[in-house]
Amino acid sequence: MSSSDIFIGEIIGTAVLILLGGGVVAAVVLKRSKAQNAGWLAITFGWGFAVMTAVYMTGSLSGAHLNPAVTVGIAIKDGDWSNVPVYFAGQILGAMIGAALVWIAYYGQFQAHLRDPEILAAQPAEEGLVDQKAAPKAGPVLGIFSTGPEVRNVWQNLATEIIGTVVLVLAVLTQGLNDSGKGLGVLGGLMVALVVVGIGLSLGGPTGYAINPARDLGPRIVHALLPLPNKGGSDWSYAWIPVVGPLVGGAIAAGIYNIAFA
Amino acid sequence: MSSSDIFIGEIIGTAVLILLGGGVVAAVVLKRSKAQNAGWLAITFGWGFAVMTAVYMTGSLSGAHLNPAVTVGIAIKDGDWSNVPVYFAGQILGAMIGAALVWIAYYGQFQAHLRDPEILAAQPAEEGLVDQKAAPKAGPVLGIFSTGPEVRNVWQNLATEIIGTVVLVLAVLTQGLNDSGKGLGVLGGLMVALVVVGIGLSLGGPTGYAINPARDLGPRIVHALLPLPNKGGSDWSYAWIPVVGPLVGGAIAAGIYNIAFA
Amino acid sequence: MSSSDIFIGEIIGTAVLILLGGGVVAAVVLKRSKAQNAGWLAITFGWGFAVMTAVYMTGSLSGAHLNPAVTVGIAIKDGDWSNVPVYFAGQILGAMIGAALVWIAYYGQFQAHLRDPEILAAQPAEEGLVDQKAAPKAGPVLGIFSTGPEVRNVWQNLATEIIGTVVLVLAVLTQGLNDSGKGLGVLGGLMVALVVVGIGLSLGGPTGYAINPARDLGPRIVHALLPLPNKGGSDWSYAWIPVVGPLVGGAIAAGIYNIAFA
Amino acid sequence: MSSSDIFIGEIIGTAVLILLGGGVVAAVVLKRSKAQNAGWLAITFGWGFAVMTAVYMTGSLSGAHLNPAVTVGIAIKDGDWSNVPVYFAGQILGAMIGAALVWIAYYGQFQAHLRDPEILAAQPAEEGLVDQKAAPKAGPVLGIFSTGPEVRNVWQNLATEIIGTVVLVLAVLTQGLNDSGKGLGVLGGLMVALVVVGIGLSLGGPTGYAINPARDLGPRIVHALLPLPNKGGSDWSYAWIPVVGPLVGGAIAAGIYNIAFA
Repeated sequence: MSSSDIFIGEIIGTAVLILLGGGVVAAVVLKRSKAQNAGWLAITFGWGFAVMTAVYMTGSLSGAHLNPAVTVGIAIKDGDWSNVPVYFAGQILGAMIGAALVWIAYYGQFQAHLRDPEILAAQPAEEGLVDQKAAPKAGPVLGIFSTGPEVRNVWQNLATEIIGTVVLVLAVLTQGLNDSGKGLGVLGGLMVALVVVGIGLSLGGPTGYAINPARDLGPRIVHALLPLPNKGGSDWSYAWIPVVGPLVGGAIAAGIYNIAFA
Repeated sequence: MSSSDIFIGEIIGTAVLILLGGGVVAAVVLKRSKAQNAGWLAITFGWGFAVMTAVYMTGSLSGAHLNPAVTVGIAIKDGDWSNVPVYFAGQILGAMIGAALVWIAYYGQFQAHLRDPEILAAQPAEEGLVDQKAAPKAGPVLGIFSTGPEVRNVWQNLATEIIGTVVLVLAVLTQGLNDSGKGLGVLGGLMVALVVVGIGLSLGGPTGYAINPARDLGPRIVHALLPLPNKGGSDWSYAWIPVVGPLVGGAIAAGIYNIAFA
Repeated sequence: MSSSDIFIGEIIGTAVLILLGGGVVAAVVLKRSKAQNAGWLAITFGWGFAVMTAVYMTGSLSGAHLNPAVTVGIAIKDGDWSNVPVYFAGQILGAMIGAALVWIAYYGQFQAHLRDPEILAAQPAEEGLVDQKAAPKAGPVLGIFSTGPEVRNVWQNLATEIIGTVVLVLAVLTQGLNDSGKGLGVLGGLMVALVVVGIGLSLGGPTGYAINPARDLGPRIVHALLPLPNKGGSDWSYAWIPVVGPLVGGAIAAGIYNIAFA
Repeated sequence: MSSSDIFIGEIIGTAVLILLGGGVVAAVVLKRSKAQNAGWLAITFGWGFAVMTAVYMTGSLSGAHLNPAVTVGIAIKDGDWSNVPVYFAGQILGAMIGAALVWIAYYGQFQAHLRDPEILAAQPAEEGLVDQKAAPKAGPVLGIFSTGPEVRNVWQNLATEIIGTVVLVLAVLTQGLNDSGKGLGVLGGLMVALVVVGIGLSLGGPTGYAINPARDLGPRIVHALLPLPNKGGSDWSYAWIPVVGPLVGGAIAAGIYNIAFA
């Protein structure tokens, strides 16, 4: 793979990932969306199919990492860090583009939601997805862009992100092992997608499962930049956890792989 | 593929698509249906399995485009427009047949629903799927046939349909790229189906994700023709958006494909 | 395939189909079940995975028809009726065994449910799955065994069962066509399973989608025989529709196949 | 496969299985989880994707039994018991590690839940997942670790666990039969996962479908050991049923396999 294919593939893939992933949260959270209150199962399947669609499209261009934690895990496993900066750059840029596309696709819903007097007056905890008593700096639509914890506890929040990312990256690294030598083809994307649905259902409760630094940081920057009315803060004090936790998790997964599977 | 295989394949495939796709909305919306209020997840999975079933059946006959936006995307990619009129004709005819079959399968439910005094007196917005304050011309069962916006905003509605269709058509065009040269077989239909579930979950909130001109226009014509009691208007002022938006989206997807993937 | 393999395969497969299919309705309907009120999506996915599990287990023994409508469709397509009686016998016997196993697995739940004074006094329509005003002869747990219509209208009920079965059997008959000559292997069962989920979501609202004479008749006989307290009638006046409708649908599907696909 | 690969594979696989499986119950049950009240469908899909992820990761190391009932079934089928003790040891150890990881990932949620005065005062039956009137010794979070019956009836509870395990192990044993000789590759894990979702939806209502002695016993030991506040009893009087039932079910499945399929 050439550097330009990697860069373009990661931009397109991560943009699609965040467009569909952020989109499903917008669909479930925002007023005047047909999917409002569609529930946690809708969110976890929506993120899973976002992964599948993005991997499916861009696997042939860049290998579809779409996640710095995956890139780090593969770099440790292969002992090759040469393309890591290109992957990172494409991922963060793609994530920002994806978040901006969510805003365009749900423009009228954002306007209606953020100007609703009841929503602005409500205790944030009533929003259901982000407990704002625990996260006093988070605005009412930040959950569409970035993750936040239900109970704000640095060590638990970090541990939950690390555990979730270990499961994800170990699943990616072991992908080829029980494949009967046939090449995964399109099945690889489906499998990883369902692993992500599983991580969301099982480990998403405490922090909203970033398990991907670009998925969290890129959209948080876009949240800070967009001209949304009454958008509230971007909760920067939490922003390092969904970056550091997944990177540590990716490295631990590569270590487990090298010890137990290689 | 011969023209007659294409024509017959697209008629059967699009009829099955709309029978199952319109059917799941009927199932969830109408009174005296066992699935009433089954929710947005049921609707999005129902549409996805509708795509899968139709692609699965007719892939060998016509290639199973089932969507003028897909036909346009493939025509631009391949530079071959010769069969486009046959595809379009089969798709619109099949969509009309499918919508009529929904009416037959749910005949008693349509009768019960459209004669219920509470439903006829209700503020349309209470129906949950179509916000009729924003869409004053839409009748109480139009959502079973065609899409409509929650917030009526031409530019946003068009943008949302374009964005959703770009994702769909780009997924279809890149389908063969990461396939390890084995031929997708039945997996192709499953993958596209789950992409459609993902688009529904993530981008369906604002407009109901037509992402297919035939899927919207054919059933709207049938809604206008059927002898349903108290059916209300067919919202023709909106009808051009789910035709133009997906066609533009299909063309943009082919452009992205030709630049980044070819 | 030998006659004895067909007979044993259809018994085991149809028993597993009805054990899991009837089981999911018991799980959702009965008091003191952890899954009570889990909803229509749970029922449709439960029936789908029932099909998948049964096809997966017994495909190599009998071809896993598990449904007289499928057997009729294949017999017409192939012009070979020699094994049809063995298939039918295995299917009806397996369905009865499966229904009895549901009763064993949910024994305490049946007892609790059928002795609950509120349930016995309730207007049947409040049960949510079977509208008993329209079906005055149906007992409070008949829906766990057999199907019944929400609106009792012979022509519509028959039409809905025919339409649903045409979709199912046409999907089965066209299964091998877009397979790239590789043999479907285990994917065949998954595809048919998801088609069944789709039919349930989209066409199950009016009659509960029997789309299989053995699936409806076998358990109805068991309902009539089991010593359940306060079980009510077995609604025999409706029983011919989910037998005749699917058989007609299977024949129509074979006709469409022979005209359009062969 | 070497004994050490089996041991390590079963530890990692069963730990992932219980981390994700126990995790989804924690996510749905505990206060201050984003997934609270996500419902039975979320639990059954969460357990299914837990199986898929674990099989997917460790299939190449140990064959991914992850369940003593599967190990017993395969040992009877193959007539080879030599590795059974290694499998059992890895499974029980892995299950304990997985349960401890759930506690870490949901630490703050456990603390909040178990110190909530309303939860401590509530009639246990109001919790929805474990009917504590029927299970007076079960603590308020035991359902995150181990299974319990809704109606406490030894013979029914045993029968339900046996029936569910027969379906699971027979599906595993017949896995290779209708595979067209291609090797299941990653599809094997997906199929078994969806069978487990099906068993959960259809047969999980009465006892919570342990269908795996290690899945129930390992976490029950961890529940007894962990320093959780107000955790209540570990319901040891029930603990033998989800051990004996699945082992009997695995043996019966192997017998059916040897008679009907071999």
